[in-house]
Amino acid sequence: MKVVKRLSDLRSWVAATKARGEKIGFVPTMGFLHEGHLALIRQARSDQEVDRVVVSIFVNPLQFGPREDYREYPRDLERDRRLVEEAGADLLFAPSVEEMYPSGFATYVEVTGQLTSVLCGRSRPGHFRGVATVVAKLFNLVCPDCAYFGLKDAQQVAVIKRMVEDLNFPVKIKVHPTVREADGLALSSRNTYLSPEERKAATVLFRALKEAEEAVKAGEREARVLQEKLSRTIQAEPLARLDYAEIVSWPDLEPATVLLPGMTYLLAVAAYFGRARLIDNLLVEVQG
Amino acid sequence: MKVVKRLSDLRSWVAATKARGEKIGFVPTMGFLHEGHLALIRQARSDQEVDRVVVSIFVNPLQFGPREDYREYPRDLERDRRLVEEAGADLLFAPSVEEMYPSGFATYVEVTGQLTSVLCGRSRPGHFRGVATVVAKLFNLVCPDCAYFGLKDAQQVAVIKRMVEDLNFPVKIKVHPTVREADGLALSSRNTYLSPEERKAATVLFRALKEAEEAVKAGEREARVLQEKLSRTIQAEPLARLDYAEIVSWPDLEPATVLLPGMTYLLAVAAYFGRARLIDNLLVEVQG
Repeated sequence: MKVVKRLSDLRSWVAATKARGEKIGFVPTMGFLHEGHLALIRQARSDQEVDRVVVSIFVNPLQFGPREDYREYPRDLERDRRLVEEAGADLLFAPSVEEMYPSGFATYVEVTGQLTSVLCGRSRPGHFRGVATVVAKLFNLVCPDCAYFGLKDAQQVAVIKRMVEDLNFPVKIKVHPTVREADGLALSSRNTYLSPEERKAATVLFRALKEAEEAVKAGEREARVLQEKLSRTIQAEPLARLDYAEIVSWPDLEPATVLLPGMTYLLAVAAYFGRARLIDNLLVEVQG
Repeated sequence: MKVVKRLSDLRSWVAATKARGEKIGFVPTMGFLHEGHLALIRQARSDQEVDRVVVSIFVNPLQFGPREDYREYPRDLERDRRLVEEAGADLLFAPSVEEMYPSGFATYVEVTGQLTSVLCGRSRPGHFRGVATVVAKLFNLVCPDCAYFGLKDAQQVAVIKRMVEDLNFPVKIKVHPTVREADGLALSSRNTYLSPEERKAATVLFRALKEAEEAVKAGEREARVLQEKLSRTIQAEPLARLDYAEIVSWPDLEPATVLLPGMTYLLAVAAYFGRARLIDNLLVEVQG
């Protein structure tokens, strides 16, 4: 596996790959890889539409707020390199901040409106602008035919799909289901922040989501009732500090009032456990 | 020459062209073509780096303000089609507004800071956001290796170059000098708005710029003196209503105070003649 840090070296590899008529699959990550990332790399590796697999590792400062965890976000490039290679990637791109955002950088990509004003968009102003901007940059550098994102970051998936459609990026977005621990906790690099007690408490997110999903299956159609159920369950956990618990339409993220048959909804939660802010979600299709 | 209106048809042509290993040169325009546009198409046609030439014609609503001339902007696709073909293009892309901005469109590309806050950026809020967004879309659709822009829109050139560098578009930007009438008036589709008297009066823009350039050559280094000279000359023309007359560094567009040897400056003017808002500029390199 080739490891590349310079933009110019990546460009040469991409140009040569494209010149051979080979298709590129791309998995953008912030590193400190877990099984969720590796599932994306394996999905790309086994994708019939793809000949070569590129993984990027870049902790993108633009998507962190001033009081967020950019500095302490976990990093381990040597371990990541090994995992990416084992998962079957052809190239690992790990640029520096200086190469990605040189002095004078001034251009941003922003998905406006509903998609970025609810859920994490409300809690983390500027976050999705940072995400859209770095993904646009990476798409222009890697020139992928397909790119792979995890559904754990469901709002990110909706934002990236909107950006790709609106700006006509010639990239097919493919989504992988959330990978979970045996007890249901969604894998996240931020889980490393958790103390053993917080780690146990954090299972409340998935438990709350499953309860709400069961309630929908049992016939509950009032979004307000479901949201209160979600909130109550999470707030009953003493180590959890609720950020949000919401039910929105998928993939438009419009607030739901009464769940309609045949429609799909996103049950989305975010909460702090100590200094770790964790998110999780479930997509629920309402039976007709 | 192929004429294409649908995004999907363009994508097919681009994919087939790229699959043959051919390089694409691209001239984006708003149509109602004049010799300035044709010079860009001929530049692309004779460019050794390019195999195929694509021209787009799209009056981009996003770059017009609410009180600007989007509706009355001149259009003549049949005449344009003939001119583009004669200039040697391989494909003319003329999409509808509905294809470019379908319902739900929400993503914008914005170059922030100095480049878009001075000159036309001040007079036309949102204009360069509209320009950057549509050019990003067109780049993703046409996938050009080289794109050609006229220096008449000098600030646009600076903004597009910044966007290409910041978002890592794999596109080389090539610039063509301003094409002028015999009496110095810069060619512009908006010149068609001018009455015969306004047409004559409009030559004051180039005359003022040449005077200021002469003053620099004669040793004047005070930006304030040069700007006053520019403004006075334009304001002396009764049919002209001055928008701005400024001297800024090139290509950063920082305000100039004392012109420094070895540096290049943009002398830029904008004025209304009747309902036509016209712009013009000269790049001046200060001798050491």
